[in-house]
Amino acid sequence: MLKPMDAEQLREYGHQMVNFVADYYKTIESFPVLSQVQPGYLRELVPTNPPTHPESLQDVLDGFLGEMLSAGINIVGFSWMSCPAATELEIIVLDWLAKLLNLPDAFLSTGNGGGVIQGTASEGVLVALLAARDKTLKKIGKDSLGKLVVYSSDQTHASVQKACQIAGIYPENFRILKTDSSTEYALSPEVVLNAILKDVASGLIPLLLCATVGSTSSTAIDPLLALGKIAKSNGIWLHVDAAYAGSACICPEYRHYINGVEEADSFSMNAHKWLLTNFDCSPLWIKDRNALIQSLSTYPEYLRNKASEANVVVDYKDWQIPLGRRFRSLKLWMVLRLYGQEGLQSYIRNHIALAKQFEELVIQDSRFEVVTPRRFSLVCFRLLPHSTDENQADKLNRALLDAVNLTGTIFISHTVLSGKYVLRLAVGAPLTEERHVIAAWKVLQEKATALLEGNVAQKPNGHAQLSNGVVEVDGALDNGVTTEQHGHVDDLPIK
Amino acid sequence: MLKPMDAEQLREYGHQMVNFVADYYKTIESFPVLSQVQPGYLRELVPTNPPTHPESLQDVLDGFLGEMLSAGINIVGFSWMSCPAATELEIIVLDWLAKLLNLPDAFLSTGNGGGVIQGTASEGVLVALLAARDKTLKKIGKDSLGKLVVYSSDQTHASVQKACQIAGIYPENFRILKTDSSTEYALSPEVVLNAILKDVASGLIPLLLCATVGSTSSTAIDPLLALGKIAKSNGIWLHVDAAYAGSACICPEYRHYINGVEEADSFSMNAHKWLLTNFDCSPLWIKDRNALIQSLSTYPEYLRNKASEANVVVDYKDWQIPLGRRFRSLKLWMVLRLYGQEGLQSYIRNHIALAKQFEELVIQDSRFEVVTPRRFSLVCFRLLPHSTDENQADKLNRALLDAVNLTGTIFISHTVLSGKYVLRLAVGAPLTEERHVIAAWKVLQEKATALLEGNVAQKPNGHAQLSNGVVEVDGALDNGVTTEQHGHVDDLPIK
Repeated sequence: MLKPMDAEQLREYGHQMVNFVADYYKTIESFPVLSQVQPGYLRELVPTNPPTHPESLQDVLDGFLGEMLSAGINIVGFSWMSCPAATELEIIVLDWLAKLLNLPDAFLSTGNGGGVIQGTASEGVLVALLAARDKTLKKIGKDSLGKLVVYSSDQTHASVQKACQIAGIYPENFRILKTDSSTEYALSPEVVLNAILKDVASGLIPLLLCATVGSTSSTAIDPLLALGKIAKSNGIWLHVDAAYAGSACICPEYRHYINGVEEADSFSMNAHKWLLTNFDCSPLWIKDRNALIQSLSTYPEYLRNKASEANVVVDYKDWQIPLGRRFRSLKLWMVLRLYGQEGLQSYIRNHIALAKQFEELVIQDSRFEVVTPRRFSLVCFRLLPHSTDENQADKLNRALLDAVNLTGTIFISHTVLSGKYVLRLAVGAPLTEERHVIAAWKVLQEKATALLEGNVAQKPNGHAQLSNGVVEVDGALDNGVTTEQHGHVDDLPIK
Repeated sequence: MLKPMDAEQLREYGHQMVNFVADYYKTIESFPVLSQVQPGYLRELVPTNPPTHPESLQDVLDGFLGEMLSAGINIVGFSWMSCPAATELEIIVLDWLAKLLNLPDAFLSTGNGGGVIQGTASEGVLVALLAARDKTLKKIGKDSLGKLVVYSSDQTHASVQKACQIAGIYPENFRILKTDSSTEYALSPEVVLNAILKDVASGLIPLLLCATVGSTSSTAIDPLLALGKIAKSNGIWLHVDAAYAGSACICPEYRHYINGVEEADSFSMNAHKWLLTNFDCSPLWIKDRNALIQSLSTYPEYLRNKASEANVVVDYKDWQIPLGRRFRSLKLWMVLRLYGQEGLQSYIRNHIALAKQFEELVIQDSRFEVVTPRRFSLVCFRLLPHSTDENQADKLNRALLDAVNLTGTIFISHTVLSGKYVLRLAVGAPLTEERHVIAAWKVLQEKATALLEGNVAQKPNGHAQLSNGVVEVDGALDNGVTTEQHGHVDDLPIK
């Protein structure tokens, strides 16, 4: 199995990259000051499809090195003309990734759609909402903003609420539909349809539905096929947030979780979360790129150029909130080429296998329960209480979280599902191995034993505030499952 | 005079940085998985004021290396708890930069204000507008969105229009006030006041005025003192966009250009434009941080932590559009420490001196004119026509731009001022020297001579589209004046 590069590989390739950048500056005066290429030049130079196999195991470079190179060359490629390579590589690499995910052709750049790298999934849902808002208001008049309704579930990421705040959706028109264990915390199509019909009957205008594949709390999966049909028949923009679980869908055995994406208007995932690419890199695909451009375009004199005016190029400034943008496709391109489809699939499968192994350890210990079925690399579990007193159960699990995180050897987080306090163990960092998972379970078992025997050590006084801060830091990880390689924020055992 | 590091220094320090990051990963298991610090810990460890002198010339590292380190450690510090160092260093370093700019205390973190690093100035003005919008709508009711008016000039950056589109300001309520050569393209307080009074009389509600210090086209300077008084007496949010010229205000002799900033509600500049920091790094200071937080905060279960709840920490996620964020203060901190106030002032003064030198060369050649007075490092000039036919003059200058950019040795851009097509030469890249400026002028003179004698070489056929694309790429540089070190996008001669 392919492994992410270790510290010594990183050192070797890092030095190579430094030399590359330094040589570039040394010879900078030999380059023309303005790029001399034609629109589309890059597509002819690279393969149409992403590589299946790692292209060269000797040359495996991580997304981190791509970021370095990007920083070193210091591109600000907001329009095609300002940096053709940055624009064209982004188009190509997002078509590649769309193919790995088997997204419908409507999301590819070859039709009316296309992909763009946003900094975060928050920006992805925001620009999708703005495109939907403006497309609808153009038809019904901008005075109707107060009638627009956005639908989500109580498991939807908070970024959708924030996007609504920014876009001016009235707070009372942001629907947080309830989920429960009967659907494993997925949105019920019936609940969604009823909410829509009720709003329409009240004279409101359903605008956008956000469906999540792999929710923050428990990796719940909203049923895209059924939701897509409802959205379509009611003229609603369907946005799919697969920030975390999208990466798993490059494996054929998990692809069915996004069946129905063909009904969506936009689809977002975070390559920086679980695809070996460092923050920030959040691809968004959209079917109607003109809706996005209509909403976000400005074209002042000082940005005018013939390439843009001929409408033969993509100007990514009109696909995002900021004007300037970094050359983020470079790191994703490096990851896709140098790991290849097989390497990335193997990486995902290994994490899921490790989580499955942890889940089995939990099941074998009758003092614990798995709270909702594990789908990917996150396990939601809790210590069972002595009695049926749920308050006592919550206290017990808070204390367990506190105790294990205080050891400093592992960091787990919590969520609340159906009112219950639930512990979460996520496997998501490149360096996690079986031994870490087993060690984490051992710490959990030991602290559980001590707790159940009423034998937990006092917190050191000097750390009172700190320990409190630490044990409830839950969600320091956006969705709690990350590929970040930093000891302080990883949501997994690393020691 | 202190010089930015050259390729060999970059190589040496780059290798050191790679070793630092590789060593970090090698020993990652020895670090606690969660940070063990108290809120405010970092302030005690660093000086209150930025250094006057470079701290160690032997160790001059550029912002690029800070970015590398940031990428390598891969922080995603959206809340204090997710990375205390990233949050606290950002607070400290923006207080430092505020002191270098002599911003009023109300913008410092020690009161009700504070600074935050946005990715771009576009995001800075957007969050300021959202804060202003929501503060006002809270008082007058959200149904009044259609009454809110935003004021700018015809020289204001397009990001303000984009921010209005996003925030839902009605297009007909976005005022683009006219400027002309009589004010050197600055906003006239009288024009602003009249527009406000007219809107108030029509039942509209003035919301925000964006004043620019160093406009995109010609580095025009809106009069902050007078505009600030008008804004204050009319209850309008004053946002100051000093994206480019803000950097110059660290020199006492240029600081007067932002006199009146004490009346502003928010102030924005781009360290990545002219302060040796690589993209992206756009500090924004705000007087009423609660207005920002009220507008942008969400607080889901998975982000809850005691540090945030105790209200003793800054959670920067609530000061910006996205949730996740990189450790961008690191590169700015490195630049401030390792160049020091003196080094940065010297860097700015050198660019301005080079621009002044170019301006003098233009003045000495009677075939040319300087179109509007040079303030900083941008010179706006044009070739004078034979006749008074302005169409012919525009054609002549377009042809000159075309001819010089086709050489591939320099890249200049254009703008339109009072309907006239004007050429722009900007000095802004770290590696620019006197010889580049003189060479640029020589190319301009040669091509002008050829043009005036009707003796311009035909464009090569194969490059017809390309050359067209190239010559009108104007503004590929956001505001045309950048510190970017890349041959393809620099707005200055580098060959």
